[in-house]
Amino acid sequence: MKALVTGGAGFIGSHLVDALMERGYHVIVLDNLSSGRLNNIGRWFDSRNFKFFRVDLRLFSDVLNVIRDEEIDVIFHLAANPSVRIGERTPGELFEDNVITTYSVLELARLKDVKAVIFTSSSTVYGDAKVLPTGEECVLEPISVYGATKVAGEAMVSAYAYTFGLKGLSLRLANIVGSRCHHGVIYDFIMKLSKNAKELEILGDGTQKKSYLHVSDCIRAILMTTEVHLKSNRIYDVFNVGNDDWITVKEIADIISKVMGLKEVTYRFTGGVDGGRGWRGDVKFMLLSTEKLKRLGWRPRLSSRKAVELAAIELVKELGVHRSVKSRPSRTHCLL
Amino acid sequence: MKALVTGGAGFIGSHLVDALMERGYHVIVLDNLSSGRLNNIGRWFDSRNFKFFRVDLRLFSDVLNVIRDEEIDVIFHLAANPSVRIGERTPGELFEDNVITTYSVLELARLKDVKAVIFTSSSTVYGDAKVLPTGEECVLEPISVYGATKVAGEAMVSAYAYTFGLKGLSLRLANIVGSRCHHGVIYDFIMKLSKNAKELEILGDGTQKKSYLHVSDCIRAILMTTEVHLKSNRIYDVFNVGNDDWITVKEIADIISKVMGLKEVTYRFTGGVDGGRGWRGDVKFMLLSTEKLKRLGWRPRLSSRKAVELAAIELVKELGVHRSVKSRPSRTHCLL
Repeated sequence: MKALVTGGAGFIGSHLVDALMERGYHVIVLDNLSSGRLNNIGRWFDSRNFKFFRVDLRLFSDVLNVIRDEEIDVIFHLAANPSVRIGERTPGELFEDNVITTYSVLELARLKDVKAVIFTSSSTVYGDAKVLPTGEECVLEPISVYGATKVAGEAMVSAYAYTFGLKGLSLRLANIVGSRCHHGVIYDFIMKLSKNAKELEILGDGTQKKSYLHVSDCIRAILMTTEVHLKSNRIYDVFNVGNDDWITVKEIADIISKVMGLKEVTYRFTGGVDGGRGWRGDVKFMLLSTEKLKRLGWRPRLSSRKAVELAAIELVKELGVHRSVKSRPSRTHCLL
Repeated sequence: MKALVTGGAGFIGSHLVDALMERGYHVIVLDNLSSGRLNNIGRWFDSRNFKFFRVDLRLFSDVLNVIRDEEIDVIFHLAANPSVRIGERTPGELFEDNVITTYSVLELARLKDVKAVIFTSSSTVYGDAKVLPTGEECVLEPISVYGATKVAGEAMVSAYAYTFGLKGLSLRLANIVGSRCHHGVIYDFIMKLSKNAKELEILGDGTQKKSYLHVSDCIRAILMTTEVHLKSNRIYDVFNVGNDDWITVKEIADIISKVMGLKEVTYRFTGGVDGGRGWRGDVKFMLLSTEKLKRLGWRPRLSSRKAVELAAIELVKELGVHRSVKSRPSRTHCLL
């Protein structure tokens, strides 16, 4: 099986590349290295089954040029600008990075007769969901430009699947955490605490409550849904990928302080906007229903709390701030 | 009230401009005249309350340039490439005409502190709906690139509304018919029959069944939902705009043959693709639930059959093929 992974040098992308390579796939990675890093995929550079092209997906002719002679069975389209927060300052950046790129990838799929496109969407497509846990059938009403770019991506995957005879799959990911994740709340807290171990600024009022999934559980879900979808007679399908529980931002601060061996950290809440959100467009309460995914046999191996704890341990080590780590739970091995 | 109407020289756009001008609005029309025509808005060119700019919405700097000194309260964003069918041949054209343009309009709204953006979406966002009549809460799974561009537009309107403090409204229109509509099945049949009165090629198997609404009923719905939304405390809202009944393509052929005074027309069905669809991406059965719209007091004045009949009469006259018209129902006045 020949897989193209866009954003394959990024956080989730590189973990997916690891899993695909370990399973014997031929893997091509496209990444512009805007947030991805070569280090994440360095271990595969000597493999005959692996190719990497640095290319900007917004420039379709460049993409087509590097891929011209490659055969591709399935595209895992993970390339995206992961920063939800920049939407309130530079929405155009998100639009270009997430919408234009997805269009490029779908055109590539159409012109190269690719069998399936697997698209990593996001829980942000629901906006402030009226039902919690939120099922796949719930109304999509994004409150952030990032969420809108993911709705747009899903819709285009659906349309291309039905129109051009390929299979499409959208996976709405909760907050995915783990090593190599250099954005989001865990990374943010670790960096702040490594600079000032006494005080931690927390965006919003700290009561934001969300579901966190370790990247190892996420990768198992991506592989399982892809395998099932390729065998099914469904042209297009959607799955939520998240955890059974959720934790507050304040609890995350507690976990990270503990992992870093810090006591008596003073939390300074910014108060946030619009009823304690971290920023405009921040979804305050997020918990996905994963009943549909579970019917395939998938279960999360780590709770939200355990996922955050393990991710913090992994990142503290990776970022070289591990000297201050005092308490370390026993279970730190890869769970794939 | 100062309104900007994108696509204001087009079919629905120009009818909306008529209604807004008659109600005393100040109206600015932006149109690139790709499918719109100056004839449609010619009657307003001498009015002090009216301005027209020919501009391509894909070129944001051009748009900003012509609008620089204008104050705008509300944007009615109707500009779009209306051809669902080209999606299977040139999806990029639809993406640029419908997605890039909507992004431009929203950026304009953000930078000009516009109060509200009213976006004409489409029944095609539902794809092959699992529930008929289809309510606004139903799953969006577009099967055409056109439908995907409308989902993308809705999502962006939602996100911009929540993020940038404006109001957003998406109106999912059924098939809107009436004078000035130079695309779609009625126009297509009239043009074919004016060339060959003996035989009519019908795309698909003729059993496609959909809901048709006269443009006069549609304009009343746009004005009513806009008025209500501007007064409500909802940031973003969605309404279906359609008829209570539906008719088959074969019935439309019968109505148009009758309006044109033609007897013994032989229908030649192409058979279509994928179970009798007119083309790949054609939704075969479409009937929207308009319960939400009706709760505002709106009712369609013409049934699907009457709407198609009146539209055919209007178009036959407008297109100059009226010499062959023999039967003409009495009610041909404007219903606004």
